[in-house]
Amino acid sequence: MAGERMAAEMAEQPDRLAALVARWDGAVAQVRALAWPELAGSVIVARGSSDAAGAYGRYLLELVSRRPVSMAAPSLHTLYGADVDYHRFLAVAVSQSGRTPEILSTLQRMQAEGAAGLAITNDGSSPLARAAQATLALEAGEERAVPATKTVTATMMAFALVAAALGTAPFTRAQAAELPAWVAAVLADPEPAEVLAAQLADATRLIVVGRGLLYSAALETALKVRETTRITAEGFSAADLRHGPIAVVEPGYPVLALRAPGPAFADMADLVDDLRRRGAEVAVVSEEDGAALPLPRGVPEALAPIVAVVRAQQLALALARRRGLDPDAPEGLTKVTVT
Amino acid sequence: MAGERMAAEMAEQPDRLAALVARWDGAVAQVRALAWPELAGSVIVARGSSDAAGAYGRYLLELVSRRPVSMAAPSLHTLYGADVDYHRFLAVAVSQSGRTPEILSTLQRMQAEGAAGLAITNDGSSPLARAAQATLALEAGEERAVPATKTVTATMMAFALVAAALGTAPFTRAQAAELPAWVAAVLADPEPAEVLAAQLADATRLIVVGRGLLYSAALETALKVRETTRITAEGFSAADLRHGPIAVVEPGYPVLALRAPGPAFADMADLVDDLRRRGAEVAVVSEEDGAALPLPRGVPEALAPIVAVVRAQQLALALARRRGLDPDAPEGLTKVTVT
Repeated sequence: MAGERMAAEMAEQPDRLAALVARWDGAVAQVRALAWPELAGSVIVARGSSDAAGAYGRYLLELVSRRPVSMAAPSLHTLYGADVDYHRFLAVAVSQSGRTPEILSTLQRMQAEGAAGLAITNDGSSPLARAAQATLALEAGEERAVPATKTVTATMMAFALVAAALGTAPFTRAQAAELPAWVAAVLADPEPAEVLAAQLADATRLIVVGRGLLYSAALETALKVRETTRITAEGFSAADLRHGPIAVVEPGYPVLALRAPGPAFADMADLVDDLRRRGAEVAVVSEEDGAALPLPRGVPEALAPIVAVVRAQQLALALARRRGLDPDAPEGLTKVTVT
Repeated sequence: MAGERMAAEMAEQPDRLAALVARWDGAVAQVRALAWPELAGSVIVARGSSDAAGAYGRYLLELVSRRPVSMAAPSLHTLYGADVDYHRFLAVAVSQSGRTPEILSTLQRMQAEGAAGLAITNDGSSPLARAAQATLALEAGEERAVPATKTVTATMMAFALVAAALGTAPFTRAQAAELPAWVAAVLADPEPAEVLAAQLADATRLIVVGRGLLYSAALETALKVRETTRITAEGFSAADLRHGPIAVVEPGYPVLALRAPGPAFADMADLVDDLRRRGAEVAVVSEEDGAALPLPRGVPEALAPIVAVVRAQQLALALARRRGLDPDAPEGLTKVTVT
């Protein structure tokens, strides 16, 4: 059946996340030993399917470490030979395979320029893991479907763990331990994604919007739908959508809006009202009654992006199958991209 | 005539840029007086039409200041109340109107947290200018068309100026002084944009791609086309495009590829070859013979994004007119967005 591998890898997520939770204390200690006691800032090196997880880390780490966090511009290091002082910076490099040459060489240059380098990778013996001063190995097992699923949620969980190491995380240890069960609850309930996929059966474009911590999940949702279905799906923050792209929203335009109780909720509620006034077909992803893609109740906002990403996987899988596409091997994509 | 204001404001650009060049030394001295002698890093606060100019600044400032540069996540400051230490950081806030509330309050919080705050704004008496410790006023005159043109190139020029203040810029003072003439040469030659607009007359989607310093111009090109034409135009870096979105490129897919002689050229050449093998209709923006949208010869790569943005304006204007749309006032957009 089309998407068999993707479905199987999605189903592994509760166990893979539980295994990360089981290693929590040791991993937190490892990150604390690596990071400078007085960080000047952090920098995240990520690409492609790691980009959304990187955005999750970018928000969470700045909130918790209370120092600026930057998303690296790898070409400055790999092409321009920029000589940037990264002393007292924590550099977190993300590559599922640990073999993306641009991520590897950017981390190496940053470490040479003074950064404390941490790799987040699925393969603890990969070139990236060997080059980094410390590694959080995801140990999620081989991922054979092209759309990354279990490595994405594991990478996000790893960022949550780094946040817990750097300061007071906006979730409790007990909540982190509950995450595998929340993900399992979503996986046990594929029906809402099937219904939404039926509604989106003929869509050629899709806007996905979130704000604050859930912005990262909007990016990942757009990427997953785009990879598996060829729908031109785009992820936006609520603020950026309002600053221009909202002009393309005409009656019937499909929009997915992600929200969770927290500081960004009111702004998302206003945006959804505005989009509906424009005639957009807005499907909400949230724990509220009536959400098109419901999230379990009680998930803290800071962990909700991980659960929302699992909903996005279900939607991408259902959409691809409806369209007669095989999400396991989308045309034109390979698993490791050399840049 | 539709787009009259936009065309008139585009035509002002050589004079507006020349006026900035005339103020060069004083402005450089002003930025040097503001910035810490030992910067820990910089942070750029920008949204919407300033986002591309911000990306230009992000690459240029990191290259020149040799310290990490971050794009701010405003919601962390305006919604989450993040308490981030910005001591020894230069915070550059960009808002054409100087009235975007989120930009203003983010800069105020960063200054309160220790940052040296610089405003880049068209209105030197705006709330943002009054709140910032120093201001580079663009003095480009009122912009009445909704798609920002002269304020975008002036903002990019202001970032070039900040780069010159912080270190050794990858362009000479003489080249900066030549920029108004290069922009005038492009404006005097609208024909290539008309021809390309005819080819794109029925397009519903467009990928715009650049790498390194020209990535910013790819973002601005996509934004301008999207704002004025309702084409779903998207800007990518070459590396990010390869990491997934390239899967949507099927035969006939329209792509604009921006490149200039420099460290990123070879990678862009490879990408264009790859896209053409996939059957994409690739139009090149560059100083090479045969470029669909030619750039003047001899523009250094670090200033080429500003000239390329003017080509993008011509294309957006021509496309909108062909489609019977008025780019001066796209439906659903207003000039100042409250976020």
